Amino acid sequence: MNLQDQFVRVPETFEGWALLHEFFRVDWKKLKEVSPEKKMKLADEWAAFQAEQNKEGFRTAYYGVLGHKGDILAIHFKSTYDELLSVQNTFAQTEFANYIEKVNSYVSVVELGMYEFTVKLEEKLLAQELSPETDEWNAAWAESMSEQRERIKNRLYTDIPNHPYVCFYPMNKKRGENVNWYTVPMKKRQDMMREHGMIGRKYAGKVTQVISGSIGFDDWEWGVDLFSQDPLVFKKLVYEMRFDEASALYGEFGPFYFGIHLNSEQYRQFMEGKL
Amino acid sequence: MNLQDQFVRVPETFEGWALLHEFFRVDWKKLKEVSPEKKMKLADEWAAFQAEQNKEGFRTAYYGVLGHKGDILAIHFKSTYDELLSVQNTFAQTEFANYIEKVNSYVSVVELGMYEFTVKLEEKLLAQELSPETDEWNAAWAESMSEQRERIKNRLYTDIPNHPYVCFYPMNKKRGENVNWYTVPMKKRQDMMREHGMIGRKYAGKVTQVISGSIGFDDWEWGVDLFSQDPLVFKKLVYEMRFDEASALYGEFGPFYFGIHLNSEQYRQFMEGKL
Amino acid sequence: MNLQDQFVRVPETFEGWALLHEFFRVDWKKLKEVSPEKKMKLADEWAAFQAEQNKEGFRTAYYGVLGHKGDILAIHFKSTYDELLSVQNTFAQTEFANYIEKVNSYVSVVELGMYEFTVKLEEKLLAQELSPETDEWNAAWAESMSEQRERIKNRLYTDIPNHPYVCFYPMNKKRGENVNWYTVPMKKRQDMMREHGMIGRKYAGKVTQVISGSIGFDDWEWGVDLFSQDPLVFKKLVYEMRFDEASALYGEFGPFYFGIHLNSEQYRQFMEGKL
Amino acid sequence: MNLQDQFVRVPETFEGWALLHEFFRVDWKKLKEVSPEKKMKLADEWAAFQAEQNKEGFRTAYYGVLGHKGDILAIHFKSTYDELLSVQNTFAQTEFANYIEKVNSYVSVVELGMYEFTVKLEEKLLAQELSPETDEWNAAWAESMSEQRERIKNRLYTDIPNHPYVCFYPMNKKRGENVNWYTVPMKKRQDMMREHGMIGRKYAGKVTQVISGSIGFDDWEWGVDLFSQDPLVFKKLVYEMRFDEASALYGEFGPFYFGIHLNSEQYRQFMEGKL
Amino acid sequence: MNLQDQFVRVPETFEGWALLHEFFRVDWKKLKEVSPEKKMKLADEWAAFQAEQNKEGFRTAYYGVLGHKGDILAIHFKSTYDELLSVQNTFAQTEFANYIEKVNSYVSVVELGMYEFTVKLEEKLLAQELSPETDEWNAAWAESMSEQRERIKNRLYTDIPNHPYVCFYPMNKKRGENVNWYTVPMKKRQDMMREHGMIGRKYAGKVTQVISGSIGFDDWEWGVDLFSQDPLVFKKLVYEMRFDEASALYGEFGPFYFGIHLNSEQYRQFMEGKL
Repeated sequence: MNLQDQFVRVPETFEGWALLHEFFRVDWKKLKEVSPEKKMKLADEWAAFQAEQNKEGFRTAYYGVLGHKGDILAIHFKSTYDELLSVQNTFAQTEFANYIEKVNSYVSVVELGMYEFTVKLEEKLLAQELSPETDEWNAAWAESMSEQRERIKNRLYTDIPNHPYVCFYPMNKKRGENVNWYTVPMKKRQDMMREHGMIGRKYAGKVTQVISGSIGFDDWEWGVDLFSQDPLVFKKLVYEMRFDEASALYGEFGPFYFGIHLNSEQYRQFMEGKL
Repeated sequence: MNLQDQFVRVPETFEGWALLHEFFRVDWKKLKEVSPEKKMKLADEWAAFQAEQNKEGFRTAYYGVLGHKGDILAIHFKSTYDELLSVQNTFAQTEFANYIEKVNSYVSVVELGMYEFTVKLEEKLLAQELSPETDEWNAAWAESMSEQRERIKNRLYTDIPNHPYVCFYPMNKKRGENVNWYTVPMKKRQDMMREHGMIGRKYAGKVTQVISGSIGFDDWEWGVDLFSQDPLVFKKLVYEMRFDEASALYGEFGPFYFGIHLNSEQYRQFMEGKL
Repeated sequence: MNLQDQFVRVPETFEGWALLHEFFRVDWKKLKEVSPEKKMKLADEWAAFQAEQNKEGFRTAYYGVLGHKGDILAIHFKSTYDELLSVQNTFAQTEFANYIEKVNSYVSVVELGMYEFTVKLEEKLLAQELSPETDEWNAAWAESMSEQRERIKNRLYTDIPNHPYVCFYPMNKKRGENVNWYTVPMKKRQDMMREHGMIGRKYAGKVTQVISGSIGFDDWEWGVDLFSQDPLVFKKLVYEMRFDEASALYGEFGPFYFGIHLNSEQYRQFMEGKL
Repeated sequence: MNLQDQFVRVPETFEGWALLHEFFRVDWKKLKEVSPEKKMKLADEWAAFQAEQNKEGFRTAYYGVLGHKGDILAIHFKSTYDELLSVQNTFAQTEFANYIEKVNSYVSVVELGMYEFTVKLEEKLLAQELSPETDEWNAAWAESMSEQRERIKNRLYTDIPNHPYVCFYPMNKKRGENVNWYTVPMKKRQDMMREHGMIGRKYAGKVTQVISGSIGFDDWEWGVDLFSQDPLVFKKLVYEMRFDEASALYGEFGPFYFGIHLNSEQYRQFMEGKL
Repeated sequence: MNLQDQFVRVPETFEGWALLHEFFRVDWKKLKEVSPEKKMKLADEWAAFQAEQNKEGFRTAYYGVLGHKGDILAIHFKSTYDELLSVQNTFAQTEFANYIEKVNSYVSVVELGMYEFTVKLEEKLLAQELSPETDEWNAAWAESMSEQRERIKNRLYTDIPNHPYVCFYPMNKKRGENVNWYTVPMKKRQDMMREHGMIGRKYAGKVTQVISGSIGFDDWEWGVDLFSQDPLVFKKLVYEMRFDEASALYGEFGPFYFGIHLNSEQYRQFMEGKL
């Protein structure tokens, strides 16, 4: 039984960079034993590693993390998962890696959900009196989607927003016994996503958001990265969104992580606990 | 009280290979101390171990894993659990095993659920005016099932699909206070499983799926392995399925694991963090 | 307010052996360093320890475990908890114990639930026109129960079933907001337990079951041990039971553990990762 | 909005000893290396530490614990939390503490809930035509409560019951979406607590119970310690209570811990794994 | 769809100090090995570190913690998250930090929720016949909020209350399937928050409360710190509040932590397990 009142119940999604978040804990007890000269070498090795990753754009960034969930957050944007595996394992070979321990991670892919476009395309094709899932329909569908993907390609393959603060959290759409996103009709979901997006738009210029999908890759359905000049904006935005229908009823939020950007010039100071 | 509206409420299942998934974390700090020659020896030992397991087919495969849930995933298909125990403990004796630590696992058995066949066989026997659970009925039942098992035996004992990417996750059918798979009548479950299967069929050629049952063996009811040439297919397939009735209402999903296949020729590079 | 429609709302239970399950992880890295002669000594020490426990019957058994939840499962049946504490701590003094680590456990007591007998005894005493909780009633009750206990004493104090495979899992009866076993009337619970028992009976000869109660002793209400010649029987039995009313609505299942019996003759091979 | 139908919705509670439960795991591998003479010294140090705590009564007791949740449970009754911090940290300075590791704990305070007395006092003051929360009312309230506290003071400051077995578990009153203790009217809660107490009374002489409150101190609302000569009594009592309304509907139970009392004369044997 | 019956559904919040809670476990085994002179040096280093943080007020405090969740709780109030990162990492460089391990933390920001003021301001602007979200409205809104923030600024930037006991716990407002704070109309939430605040006011003088928001920063929505001369006040206050509507229906409480204030004069004694 199709629980939906439309032919199309699954919105198209477009995917861009493969994403890896890594959280590392610093073994300060061990790092403290190291001479200042050695620390500089470790910092330089780290900076060189990053520079190598960032040859074609700002695609690997490091953040200092408050609290016990880790001391360093690494975010990597890569073309493929194979490259991510390579980045991960190459970094493990650095000497700096001897002083840190990976304690958490998140695997996802930059995603743009096409709720609006999907619904409108369906309406358009129906208006053209095409029958769903005929060859004609499928060809028209594929062509429009392909054009649309091309149109917004730059949003799928952007650099990491270069802001001093990051907020990362994973989330699901609720699948409760009574309240279940996946049984809501497509149109209604589209409406809620539009309202949700409107709130985001109010924060345009103050926060840059990267949504990534992780169904099939990690334990939650989506990862959200917010980047800003002002940490309080994270709180204001997430709090306000908590009252929109999509989030109030259907949002399930995982742990929240907060990081402060580390420029590669700061690695030496970071090694000595100074910033 | 039989909550079902049919005589048969439990679909038959056929079982094939016994399955073991093992996740290992690499102790890179320790492995880095090792000379290149020694690493080659470790890689060769690993490859020899695998070759030994794969004498009769591709039944033991290794994957590189992104993130902190482990660095290597091993999948073993064996005839018996005794053989799996032997594989597990023999591998622990290798020298390579000194450089890794087992951090997760899953125990299951290849399973084909016979919803369609079970319902149709019941209808057929009833049409023959046999009475349920009489000797006659039981003999006819056993004979048909045995024939059917023979017919699809090759699907119970296949090699590991030789694709570069794997997605593994465990799942349950929900047993909530209002929404409970195990109180749904057999026919209705059969309908939902058929619809669920239709979506899978749309991805035929793009993804190969191995379902294994783990009731009585591990903490979830089923394990799902998806194999593909394209990692995005995992996301597309699992997302689309999330909207079918069986999954939307009754699917409960555990953690997701993503792996990249390692050929035995790549073990030497893997040891050095290169791929 | 008594939520029940009978005088007796709590079924009598009879208790037998005190039970301890222990899960140990083997430190293979350390054990590998040991000479073959030393391994034999460790194996012999282990076998001697077990023999000591089993002087009066098969009351301490060891199983090899697949996966990461442990490598060895020990099951102990003893007369008292004091003896279990002694067994546990004495074993920790063996040299073999230097090569393993306890990672999990379960404390319980063999239990036979007397639903049928309790309900029938109440009916009988009421038919005799005794008034509940009078001295007369209590004396008659105690006498009948005591006789019944004597009658089934051998089921409370059996040896460990000597089968090659074991399946262990803890479980609760659900105490949800709408679906709550402990608010169901006694008679209805009795009916469900009878139906539940019928399924078990279909597997007589194929599986031997030991139910133990752990209310007051461990984190779940009951522990279930299934012993069989055929591991698939565990899956078939537990799956079929999942559809009976008692399990479908009220069963809450903890983690599942699967073990393969180790004879003391096999300890030497086990030490070397061979079986 | 006051969800209650009475002026008083919160029952008075009286508090006595500050309580600390500590669970320690013994490092048997390390302790085994120690000479018998040294073990005796460790045992004597432990006994002396305990004697110091128990100068004024039996206020610090130790129990052997089955399974992997710890090997030793310490229960401390002290006048203040400052004294508990001192006991905890002083014990950490003993040499014996080098051979054990703290793995769990519970912080609470002996509590007597005054449901009956609170409801009756309200009725009495209303009958005297006092107006709630006037100075007169408050003075009368304080005076009666103070007298009552004096009357039952010995129950707030008792020694640890000197029985061979202990059962400890934390619990909450449920705060579900439909079933929520904190929205039940005071009178109804009083009725349920009375019924709950009646069951406890049936076990008088067989079990001694110490209830402690941990709201504001630890993760659950209450801790329950049961002390008995017979471990099976714990199971019988907790099981029977599971059917009374207060527990069936509103009880949420945490992990259960079972311990066997260790007299200080037994410490030497304990050190050697013998009892 | 706006689920609220007002224009404004999100109450304004004002933010003050950035907050970091850190929990440390002491490695007593290691610290015991240290000479008394060295311990004094460690204590003095710790005191000097704290003095440095507290140059401009009491903004970094340490507490002794009961149980296994840590031995020391550090609370830091700082102007920015960058300063918090610096404090955290600088402390990790002290020699004392070699003897402790960070095991838990909480990141938040002092928050005052403006339910009353927000609702009243909306009413006022509507009475002035301004239209929501016009430039005029926005200007009037911003001006009033800015004045109000100035008025209560001292509550956003206070020192740490200098009391001997602290109780810390994180909490959420429930987002259940039926009971969901974020779908309750603004006015109703305002009423509940007012009632909630009334109970707090009854404890004025007995307890000082610091609420901090952690949406976007940590895993719960708010952190609550209570400071008092009397530990029992924590229990009385939290218990009484559990019956008010906002808490009874919508409060979700995380783990509770209890600490005893350590003056820097006490650090030497603390090092030796004496207080």
